[in-house]
Amino acid sequence: MIVRLLMTGNELMNGRVVDSNSARLAQALAGLGLAVEARSTVGDALPLLVSELQRLSQGADLLIVNGGLGPTVDDRTAQALAQAAGLPLAEHPDALGHLQQWLAARRLSLNAANRKQALLPAGCDVIPNQQGSAVGFGLHLNGCRLLCTPGVPSELEAMLKATILPLIRREFPGLDDWQESVLHLFGIGESSLQQRISDHFPDWPAALELGFRASLPTLELKLRSQDRDQRVLHDTWLCRLRHDLAEWVVAEGDDSLSHRVVSLLNERSLRLSTAESCTGGMLAALITETPGASAVFDAGFITYSNRMKTELLGVNADLLEQQGAVSEAVVLKMAEGALRRSGADYAIAVSGIAGPEGGSTEKPVGTVWLAWGQRDRLRARCFYLAQPRKTFQTLIAALGLDLIRRDILGLPEARCFPVPGDTA
Amino acid sequence: MIVRLLMTGNELMNGRVVDSNSARLAQALAGLGLAVEARSTVGDALPLLVSELQRLSQGADLLIVNGGLGPTVDDRTAQALAQAAGLPLAEHPDALGHLQQWLAARRLSLNAANRKQALLPAGCDVIPNQQGSAVGFGLHLNGCRLLCTPGVPSELEAMLKATILPLIRREFPGLDDWQESVLHLFGIGESSLQQRISDHFPDWPAALELGFRASLPTLELKLRSQDRDQRVLHDTWLCRLRHDLAEWVVAEGDDSLSHRVVSLLNERSLRLSTAESCTGGMLAALITETPGASAVFDAGFITYSNRMKTELLGVNADLLEQQGAVSEAVVLKMAEGALRRSGADYAIAVSGIAGPEGGSTEKPVGTVWLAWGQRDRLRARCFYLAQPRKTFQTLIAALGLDLIRRDILGLPEARCFPVPGDTA
Repeated sequence: MIVRLLMTGNELMNGRVVDSNSARLAQALAGLGLAVEARSTVGDALPLLVSELQRLSQGADLLIVNGGLGPTVDDRTAQALAQAAGLPLAEHPDALGHLQQWLAARRLSLNAANRKQALLPAGCDVIPNQQGSAVGFGLHLNGCRLLCTPGVPSELEAMLKATILPLIRREFPGLDDWQESVLHLFGIGESSLQQRISDHFPDWPAALELGFRASLPTLELKLRSQDRDQRVLHDTWLCRLRHDLAEWVVAEGDDSLSHRVVSLLNERSLRLSTAESCTGGMLAALITETPGASAVFDAGFITYSNRMKTELLGVNADLLEQQGAVSEAVVLKMAEGALRRSGADYAIAVSGIAGPEGGSTEKPVGTVWLAWGQRDRLRARCFYLAQPRKTFQTLIAALGLDLIRRDILGLPEARCFPVPGDTA
Repeated sequence: MIVRLLMTGNELMNGRVVDSNSARLAQALAGLGLAVEARSTVGDALPLLVSELQRLSQGADLLIVNGGLGPTVDDRTAQALAQAAGLPLAEHPDALGHLQQWLAARRLSLNAANRKQALLPAGCDVIPNQQGSAVGFGLHLNGCRLLCTPGVPSELEAMLKATILPLIRREFPGLDDWQESVLHLFGIGESSLQQRISDHFPDWPAALELGFRASLPTLELKLRSQDRDQRVLHDTWLCRLRHDLAEWVVAEGDDSLSHRVVSLLNERSLRLSTAESCTGGMLAALITETPGASAVFDAGFITYSNRMKTELLGVNADLLEQQGAVSEAVVLKMAEGALRRSGADYAIAVSGIAGPEGGSTEKPVGTVWLAWGQRDRLRARCFYLAQPRKTFQTLIAALGLDLIRRDILGLPEARCFPVPGDTA
């Protein structure tokens, strides 16, 4: 079965946007055992769109078109497909209905630009979109099944699961089912992980495919196999992997580190409080990303200045003066203050130098102290991570959650981001 | 001048790797005024590589091929190009010399796998690579200039600057420089923006290209023109756009909403404090993303529970009981509390229902109250935004910053996300 992709949009041609949709589509198709033979990417020029639709559909069984469904004049997929198929454009009642409903739910009224989104090649089938104003649509061209999908990644993602993959399964019966498991790891790098797996599993079975993907702040480890014959093998080796990597596995499947930490706290009826300096609220934001976080989280303190560390968390001003804000003594006092002020059972405190300014020889940009734990057993540790400001903040916020996870589960302390000279 | 890209490698087809090289190449070419007309991406199968080299070189002036220069058997660019051009492969003395030098510097000896990298289509010109063992090379095919470049991003980057861009400039004299301006907008949708521009600028000049891109939480509006003749035209119409859209333009170029708000506060020597419930720290995290935020931001309060709204911000418990946490009276008290506790000049407070649980008929999921301003002139307003939890949090955090921006600049209040029945 020959599968091709046509990615469209000027933003993919001028270098402004890195195309992640084509990788997502390829992954989703791989889940059905389908490989993409070729992919073409063009801008919004109509003649080229028309000729690429013609060329790519010839000799292919499935052509997925991505992008160009929006309301603006540079969204031309429907027009190009109508032209390639020799069909008129017609207002599709399902598309119009969807549009009216979508706008009504947002208290918006239909304008000419929106209305264009209901103009589709006559006789096409509409693919619902739960998340956006534009519907997807399908057609046959040169004997090839053509599916037009939205360019907005979140809409594509939702449609893949809800409609597109089921539709492909239905229309192309006999596709292999694949079983896929994903482990999310934190605190281990891709090459170390790869090395560890080759060392610990020299007899790794060829039928089980392993994939790695860095997905800041975590690393995805994916295990794939053809479902038909390999279910027991898959489950056995997944179990071995999970056991061997237990320390770093922070979540599985659709789960997240945030969700995991909220669950762990919730199961133990522990309430958490945060005291943040350099992460500026990002750690708390990561926790409250999880629905139901209110069961474990009452309050967070963002004490960006020294004065506020003193006034809100009771950190002694002399201590700040003597040790500096980025120090073991100060993060411990911040954590104590957060526990006292919030009445929480568990606290995490962060103070570091996110840069690009503010570093010194002794405490360069990237130095960060974290303190965590329950009232009578607070611990603190220094880490060092020379990364751009936002990456630093994102990784340190995740590290904070991971320290809580490790602490609750009685796992060894994180060995990632060691300070220079650290031999741990 | 017609420019095309051919990206190669199985890793680009199976969804494992997101292709960032094509965006980098497009950006670099855009700097010479060159637009990429089409891009094809294929795996390492030789027949398809050969046919794509043939197809893409026909009718093009420049074809840049990326990837497939390495030492392994699946690196087939030289072989495919030799076959497409009907040339033998021959050991190129420059390539061999580079390889020997590169290996010697690393105390490595030449093996068969390496030596393959010196086998190039006979008569091609070698493009030096300072960073890797594989050289680039060039050839003419079907009257098109073909340049083969490495797939490793850091090697590509170094070669672009050092050799490839200078080579293109030299071989294609008279290339234009382009001027590009980007406006970042918040609070207006893509279709409304498009409609407004068609209505307000019916005489928009054809020489100025307009592009739109949704980049949550903002919308990018891009203006592009050929620098040679159009600089005055470009600047004039950019100025008109900026004026017409002033209310929504939150930043320009590499600037961000966060940076803009930090600058506005800094210029007026105003210090800000935040009091967040449903955004859980995201608003503060957005502010502190900007280097130097400490000049305007001392402290933020994340009061997720009612008890903490009372204890940390002094919101009356009876008021919370009577009005509910998501109410005008409560966000105003939260803002007052943040001002009082932090000593800041300016506060913003947020309380809403992020969902998926916690909604009611009266206050459905997506309802949010914000209060903002200086001590004696605090204002509050209700918004409604039915979006998935994380999108809701991201947009409301940005809305918070935008309300500050509008307030400081004396712009009208935001009309985005109206509450049901609101006629604003």
